[in-house]
Amino acid sequence: MLPLMPQGPLPTELIRALPSTTPFVGPETLERMTGRKFELRLGANESLFGASPVAIEAMSQSAAMGHFYGDPEGFDLRTEIAERHGTTIDHVVLGSGIDDLLMLFCRAYLSPGDNALATHGSYPTFEYAVQSVGARMLFDLYTDEGMVDLESLTHFAQVDAPPVVYIANPDNPTGSWHSPAALAEFRQSLHRDVLFLLDEAYADFAPEVAPFDPSDHGVVRLRTFSKGYGMAGIRVGYALCAPEHVANVNKIRLHFGVSNVALAGALAALRDQDHLRTVVRETELARAWLASEMLKLGFPSIPSHTNFLTIRIGTKEKAADLLLALRKRGVFIRKPMKAFDECIRVSIGPQSVMEEFMGRFAEVSRS
Amino acid sequence: MLPLMPQGPLPTELIRALPSTTPFVGPETLERMTGRKFELRLGANESLFGASPVAIEAMSQSAAMGHFYGDPEGFDLRTEIAERHGTTIDHVVLGSGIDDLLMLFCRAYLSPGDNALATHGSYPTFEYAVQSVGARMLFDLYTDEGMVDLESLTHFAQVDAPPVVYIANPDNPTGSWHSPAALAEFRQSLHRDVLFLLDEAYADFAPEVAPFDPSDHGVVRLRTFSKGYGMAGIRVGYALCAPEHVANVNKIRLHFGVSNVALAGALAALRDQDHLRTVVRETELARAWLASEMLKLGFPSIPSHTNFLTIRIGTKEKAADLLLALRKRGVFIRKPMKAFDECIRVSIGPQSVMEEFMGRFAEVSRS
Repeated sequence: MLPLMPQGPLPTELIRALPSTTPFVGPETLERMTGRKFELRLGANESLFGASPVAIEAMSQSAAMGHFYGDPEGFDLRTEIAERHGTTIDHVVLGSGIDDLLMLFCRAYLSPGDNALATHGSYPTFEYAVQSVGARMLFDLYTDEGMVDLESLTHFAQVDAPPVVYIANPDNPTGSWHSPAALAEFRQSLHRDVLFLLDEAYADFAPEVAPFDPSDHGVVRLRTFSKGYGMAGIRVGYALCAPEHVANVNKIRLHFGVSNVALAGALAALRDQDHLRTVVRETELARAWLASEMLKLGFPSIPSHTNFLTIRIGTKEKAADLLLALRKRGVFIRKPMKAFDECIRVSIGPQSVMEEFMGRFAEVSRS
Repeated sequence: MLPLMPQGPLPTELIRALPSTTPFVGPETLERMTGRKFELRLGANESLFGASPVAIEAMSQSAAMGHFYGDPEGFDLRTEIAERHGTTIDHVVLGSGIDDLLMLFCRAYLSPGDNALATHGSYPTFEYAVQSVGARMLFDLYTDEGMVDLESLTHFAQVDAPPVVYIANPDNPTGSWHSPAALAEFRQSLHRDVLFLLDEAYADFAPEVAPFDPSDHGVVRLRTFSKGYGMAGIRVGYALCAPEHVANVNKIRLHFGVSNVALAGALAALRDQDHLRTVVRETELARAWLASEMLKLGFPSIPSHTNFLTIRIGTKEKAADLLLALRKRGVFIRKPMKAFDECIRVSIGPQSVMEEFMGRFAEVSRS
């Protein structure tokens, strides 16, 4: 055999070393594999309550004006965001979702070989972003109860001195939550040179959220319109942080990257807090109902402060079997793949959807 | 004075070395500075013909379903794109515009210290992407006629062996264009290890476009829905290239980064080629009219094969003065800032808009 000759341009060493896996497979991919559409889509914590009708109307109108680029400064949206957080616009940077912002902050604050600290099994797209810049993950473990282990993370951060620390609060995929007081204590334990990425994708569902503190230059709080606001497909989120971090990210972000539809939709969504409150209230009720029904069948849940519920099935194999059995019955859910892999994770929608889900779950869990 | 102490986390050395400038200032920023809205927005080559009504309807409908993430594989859109280019889906990768794709290909194919070759004064967002990964620009010069100098680029590429070469064809900001035969000859001159990024943002307006050649592993052709299709604010584009390049970019791209609105809009837009043909035909007529009117006033243009016209004003100062004078009369245009800085660049819209522009231009050019 002749040696293989290179056939064209090669990517960087970093890219060659990266795996070809992606954090999430979309339900459409599974549908194409099975040839069957899902009837219940409960795997990605999308809001089955939908976006605010006011936001939908704003997006429809802006779609008709899509021949114009959106404002690259996102001025109106950032102004509204800043006012709601009691701060100024220079503390706000927009992205096309938290994924975009995680990538940007990793590119801006991690060099190849640096470490980033997170909890093993937490939101995998952070790890994806860290790896994409040639940095390495340092993993702490969840507590048995599914809590991010703040004490242990403190220890790790002090011993290994990673430049970036990541926590999702409320956490995904466990749904667990730490109080503002507990997080503040953790934050105080970090060296002032650490960038603390606090992923608050599910903050809209949290019992309590600390106000933004513009005097703390070490924390970046990440928010999205994907969950509570029901705009996952629209792609818009923001970071709240010190102005120098905004300026740094501005050096590499796609300035026209947030669509005009997203800008208009997010602005309208913020101004319809009634819709958000209704979604949160109905989510809490449906989540409590689902947890109680699951318990009746012998499946306890990790207490959730999000729009999903992570349910303990017993073993990894049983959880995977249930996932596949539900898939055959037209139900898309996901399961944690690293920590808590004996669990399934179910998005919370309106009560009627949860009842439909519970019916199908009861069938497959009996067989 | 005490020495300044670091106040918090610092970005990477690379970020610290980057300038805080951005390639483009949006018209909204200028509007906020002057307190006056532009009446004619002709600075960003947005399509004043708008998107296809079919695409707008598809986007409106998908906005109402924005609580669902878009298909991360963009399967339907990529399938349609592949069919139209006579290739298969594994040759197509989507991005939220060409800017997104330029950034991804630079991240995947340029290491810090590498060179990237382009024409000085051509689309500045390529340089922005190159710098963001710590690579350096090697610049060739335009010919006096505003042509990308293929002969000179060939020489540069052979002497300096940059791993990435960029050409926009048709070019921005000159509007000039090389035939498929000329580009093929240039491409043949490149070493097979070179990645040739061919930015075809304005291809819809080109007199002739080469068919996609899936056997050529060295070329990446970049397309967008921002220009001919009139969807600049929606953020969607694609690259046509060898499957290994798609796979490499897939290792770092935001898999959920193209919105569900963009996916639906682009698919519908592709299926309404009548709209595109009308836009192209009317653009050509209005562009010829504008060029002729300008010539009557003593201002020759660079022959354009795009939806903009670059007009020679004489000196950099006169061009800048005209730009500001037009701004005061509610007209947003831009001007080339490096090469051809004695020119202004005007987007081509419907004839009526061009007449309105010409009226205001005639006023300010006389004063």
